[in-house]
Amino acid sequence: MKGNRIYNFSAGPAMLPEEVLEQAAAEMLDYKGSGMSVMEMSHRSKVYQGIIDEAEKDLRELIGIPENYKVLFLQGGATLQFALIPLNFMFNGKADYINTGVWTKKAIKDAKLYGDVRVIASGEENGFKKIPDVKSLKFNEDSDYVYICDNNTIFGTKYKEYPETGDIPLFCDMSSCFLSEPIDVKKFGLIYAGAQKNVGPAGVTILIIRDDLLAKAPRQPLPAYFDYRLHVENGSMYNTPPTYGIYICGLVFKWLLKNGGLKAREKANEEKAKILYDYLDKSEFFKPFADKSCRSLMNVTFRTPSEELDAEFLEGAKKYRFTNLKGHRLTGGLRASIYNAMPKEGVEALVKYLKEFEEAHK
Amino acid sequence: MKGNRIYNFSAGPAMLPEEVLEQAAAEMLDYKGSGMSVMEMSHRSKVYQGIIDEAEKDLRELIGIPENYKVLFLQGGATLQFALIPLNFMFNGKADYINTGVWTKKAIKDAKLYGDVRVIASGEENGFKKIPDVKSLKFNEDSDYVYICDNNTIFGTKYKEYPETGDIPLFCDMSSCFLSEPIDVKKFGLIYAGAQKNVGPAGVTILIIRDDLLAKAPRQPLPAYFDYRLHVENGSMYNTPPTYGIYICGLVFKWLLKNGGLKAREKANEEKAKILYDYLDKSEFFKPFADKSCRSLMNVTFRTPSEELDAEFLEGAKKYRFTNLKGHRLTGGLRASIYNAMPKEGVEALVKYLKEFEEAHK
Repeated sequence: MKGNRIYNFSAGPAMLPEEVLEQAAAEMLDYKGSGMSVMEMSHRSKVYQGIIDEAEKDLRELIGIPENYKVLFLQGGATLQFALIPLNFMFNGKADYINTGVWTKKAIKDAKLYGDVRVIASGEENGFKKIPDVKSLKFNEDSDYVYICDNNTIFGTKYKEYPETGDIPLFCDMSSCFLSEPIDVKKFGLIYAGAQKNVGPAGVTILIIRDDLLAKAPRQPLPAYFDYRLHVENGSMYNTPPTYGIYICGLVFKWLLKNGGLKAREKANEEKAKILYDYLDKSEFFKPFADKSCRSLMNVTFRTPSEELDAEFLEGAKKYRFTNLKGHRLTGGLRASIYNAMPKEGVEALVKYLKEFEEAHK
Repeated sequence: MKGNRIYNFSAGPAMLPEEVLEQAAAEMLDYKGSGMSVMEMSHRSKVYQGIIDEAEKDLRELIGIPENYKVLFLQGGATLQFALIPLNFMFNGKADYINTGVWTKKAIKDAKLYGDVRVIASGEENGFKKIPDVKSLKFNEDSDYVYICDNNTIFGTKYKEYPETGDIPLFCDMSSCFLSEPIDVKKFGLIYAGAQKNVGPAGVTILIIRDDLLAKAPRQPLPAYFDYRLHVENGSMYNTPPTYGIYICGLVFKWLLKNGGLKAREKANEEKAKILYDYLDKSEFFKPFADKSCRSLMNVTFRTPSEELDAEFLEGAKKYRFTNLKGHRLTGGLRASIYNAMPKEGVEALVKYLKEFEEAHK
């Protein structure tokens, strides 16, 4: 970390690679001799078309997106997609949802406005500490899709294997684990993610959609912005896209490609998470929150023995310039989000502080 | 203009003040000692709350927004609002729209999905060269609102006075003239604008909504992102807002306040537009497109005697590093968008080129 920079454990928006920020700063008044900031460019200009085309090309290479999948850069975050997904794809008005926390609950609530939502499994009874066992799941054959949230930012849980939904398309909110590990796109009908965790600034939402679904969509006439097919037909430029945000995402894609791609990222993320979980598991003071069977590599949830000590821990973290370690109000306790751009040194420094705090308070 | 910077006549996204870009570049890796880029900040953090609060405060001061109006920073551009406006506010399923070009046509098309849209006046028969006479308009008394687009970017027209709608709320898309002149907010029930003309980067949409309308909205249960009231209740942070874009808008608001506010901006914009229109009016070669009665100060539409000469003009413009002077495909010809951040020198330099081109080709 350079200069005054700090270790930011925010659940999102989150840390970005320093190299990316440095390049963005250097190009702010003049992008590659264009005489303009990327913020000032017409989205209809050749220079901007080059930026968005390259971002998509790099993303396709990074993930290995098959040709029969379309890529979109939209706005509105996951929250807007909670509504647009049923509006576009609930062809028969029926879908299966797996409830693993706040984000699926919100998705379920919105989808219910448009059709028959069957919650076929839920982690609610165990306080969302655990992802339901996918092996024992039964899907409704008349479902238009099965919907899951891969990584649950608030509770710190993650699917370790995906449900086998056969001919029913699997739709996945990957917001908080997207690009943190390889993705087998062909398992899914639709993948989407808000950028503000591993990818770029808030305000960009990336979607990857299988083209046979798009060919049938939308299920009814929709206003322009709601219509995924219209956005696809216009290369994410039916209306002005979040041009600067997409440019930053493109810089992050190049940073990932240069640094070994998603396999290297997975290895680094496993290493970082292991350092933290290993310490928490052997600690007699800190307690991890999520069940061992489904721990997130991105969001590590834990707590001290009391709310007072949690508060003291957060207060003491300031001294080391660690920020955003407070858990979500629904879980309480503490949370360290360690996305792609969090260096291993940041996790090691945090563990050092955990040890020190445990020593002083146990 | 510094260094390699050029005169960018784009209709949007468009030029931003150099000072703003310089500050953004300087703060990219460390915003005011926070150790973070604004892009990396949790939207739930105190430091970011300070940024969005200050942006709203400055915007309220700049315009003089009455207390009974709420301000929102959302996503999705005008295009998303075309749908959300009727979904939230078409309480009786009826609204009057005035059609002044592409953007109102799109708004009308979307609104028709949700109710009875009465197009009470249209500029279509005169090729949208003219804003319909507002004095002679009759409004339907059962309308939930009257909808207009103030400045028509494509055709270069602008309302010089607004329709008097009595008790029916007037809703206004101000995307391409927002903050270019003083705004009398109390004339309107709702004002909205995409940021990418005079305000900031694409991906931020600003709304100003009278609170009695919000108290009745939405007209039916809506998914979370569609529901303006939910966004208002959460201070534009129901979900993650476009944090970095809002920060840039905030820097632009400060730049405007420092430079005399909206009155000074109006004066400067009138001066700039006059230089260009005066030349076009006396030219025997170039022809302005929009009717004199309703010329935009932001988007100056004109043409040479032929398409071939238009093309030659655009080719020649490269030599002076003028960019984005091509007219929209619907009008053809040429267009110079001269938003707030376009300096007077840019317009003077353009007129010099117009003269030179006219001399050489008349």
